[in-house]
Amino acid sequence: MRKPLLAALAGEAVWPPPLWLMRQAGRYLPEYREIRAQAGDFIALCTTPALATEVTLQPLRRYGMDAAILFSDILILPWALGHGLRFEEGEGPVLPPLRDAATLAGLRPERVTEAVAPVLETVRRVRAELDEAMGGTAALIGFAGAPFTVACYMVEGRGSKDFPAVRGMAYRDPALFGRLMELLTEATIVYLAAQIEAGAEAVMLFDSWAGVLAPSPFRAHVIAPATRIVAALRARFPDVPVIGFPRLAGLSIGAYASATGVQGLGLDTTADPALASRLVPAPVALQGNLDPLALEAGGAAMRDATQAILAAMRGRPFVFNLGHGIVPSTSPAHVAELVGLVRGA
Amino acid sequence: MRKPLLAALAGEAVWPPPLWLMRQAGRYLPEYREIRAQAGDFIALCTTPALATEVTLQPLRRYGMDAAILFSDILILPWALGHGLRFEEGEGPVLPPLRDAATLAGLRPERVTEAVAPVLETVRRVRAELDEAMGGTAALIGFAGAPFTVACYMVEGRGSKDFPAVRGMAYRDPALFGRLMELLTEATIVYLAAQIEAGAEAVMLFDSWAGVLAPSPFRAHVIAPATRIVAALRARFPDVPVIGFPRLAGLSIGAYASATGVQGLGLDTTADPALASRLVPAPVALQGNLDPLALEAGGAAMRDATQAILAAMRGRPFVFNLGHGIVPSTSPAHVAELVGLVRGA
Repeated sequence: MRKPLLAALAGEAVWPPPLWLMRQAGRYLPEYREIRAQAGDFIALCTTPALATEVTLQPLRRYGMDAAILFSDILILPWALGHGLRFEEGEGPVLPPLRDAATLAGLRPERVTEAVAPVLETVRRVRAELDEAMGGTAALIGFAGAPFTVACYMVEGRGSKDFPAVRGMAYRDPALFGRLMELLTEATIVYLAAQIEAGAEAVMLFDSWAGVLAPSPFRAHVIAPATRIVAALRARFPDVPVIGFPRLAGLSIGAYASATGVQGLGLDTTADPALASRLVPAPVALQGNLDPLALEAGGAAMRDATQAILAAMRGRPFVFNLGHGIVPSTSPAHVAELVGLVRGA
Repeated sequence: MRKPLLAALAGEAVWPPPLWLMRQAGRYLPEYREIRAQAGDFIALCTTPALATEVTLQPLRRYGMDAAILFSDILILPWALGHGLRFEEGEGPVLPPLRDAATLAGLRPERVTEAVAPVLETVRRVRAELDEAMGGTAALIGFAGAPFTVACYMVEGRGSKDFPAVRGMAYRDPALFGRLMELLTEATIVYLAAQIEAGAEAVMLFDSWAGVLAPSPFRAHVIAPATRIVAALRARFPDVPVIGFPRLAGLSIGAYASATGVQGLGLDTTADPALASRLVPAPVALQGNLDPLALEAGGAAMRDATQAILAAMRGRPFVFNLGHGIVPSTSPAHVAELVGLVRGA
């Protein structure tokens, strides 16, 4: 029998829906904080297979989700390309801003596979645990940041409300920006293909900042690279579904889903499930989209929001999830109640 | 003859379209920076009628836009309610975070009209200048922050990527949040009505952070207050149009336009003009939505993006604008070229 997540991504209206949560491995769990403290820095945690495997599996041990998502970070790719990366407390990721051809020329796509070897080892270990020790019903999701979102951090050098440096570069120097996007698109294909070969059963493409773009740059920098990535992966791995997550794409989710050929589309918190369901018809599976702050609040706010999503999604291929990452102040008890609610649907 | 902006907002497909730019009075203009330096702090500039009148009119003197928008700030309302407000260099607005009933009880809605007297004096002076000295074709737009966006800053205490404190309060303490929203909605009606009585010929409701909300809170905290504000103003001033600007509302702009009864809908940078045009049919006027970074880049990027918007909007009621505020590093020469492009449409 197919794992429930993979059945939903193949277009089946599995009910109750399979469930996992974005950033399900993370700071809201005391057992995560313990391992995090052992690991030293965040990149070390992502690149130490024993630790990354353990934190990937922790939420499944507690709650029995239908998928494990590789514990890693979307900025592991620029790190693997040899672009500097560090995480600062209270600041998030900090990278050397990429603003010229010389910095671009310093990127080393040929070293990606070697650099991500520890991540691939984590994929192998998690998959073996899921299938051998944990019952074989949960699927393993690999992931990468989409090229535009990775470019956002590389060009801007850090997080931002709306990434003016990268958007400006795309308008002012389309040749340089195009070469960066080309390099990132190819490297993403290599990276995701390696995750699939190591055991990932589905992959997700996180375009967290897709929503800052005007329509024409959205087509060029979000839809076009995702289309290439999906096509390249499908040619090699026809049975491995891709979930696209163009966060805050608003009106453009229909165009994204039909143009890219993704099997799953992640809905962010702001998307109306009923309207999204019309814009993105089956067999594409929708995934989402409980507000992480409704989960954090718990109680009636969480229950009402969850029921509204379930009611809108019943009868179509669907994967229950949050609309954005879980917030660290979330009570683990709220997560347990949510899992019960969805399982009882 | 009706002023072009007012004709478009009344549902006429005026062509070439009337034009103004969000934050058209601002730091990209040397003559603004000169007055800003004289004024001392930013709140003093907003509340000194001679200076605020001058900066409101500066861009019209240079470029002859079809509208002047009152030079002020959406946070003048909390300031007028007696809630602390200061602007910090490089940080933006800072307010005491409103998190409990005692702080809410300290707000003084009865003092709003008196506190905003200098703003109303600016409205009177600008309107007189426009109609007496400047030819009488440009219309004066008054504005306020929408209650949710004002609440974002009051609860969070400063800008944020996604305002978790206010969204969390709305879920966890709907009674307290409801009282804050009620107070802000009523105060906004009083404030906008006073601007209209002082001479504003249209008003715009800026809901800059509408896009952080999940669908159900969006209906409760964006659509419902806007509906009340539009109804209250229409009852008193049936000929004064309201432009709603639920920024980043994505899929929800159709619901917003039809439920609230606004005469104009501002499109943010990310909205696809053709799709928006189907979701928000005439006689509602659309306004927008050139990417401010395309304007800053200038050249082909600006021209192509402008032509795409004009092509999509021709034949329907439309007001040309940016999709978000002009960025301070924009060259005044690019603005001049843009105005020429739109005028030549």
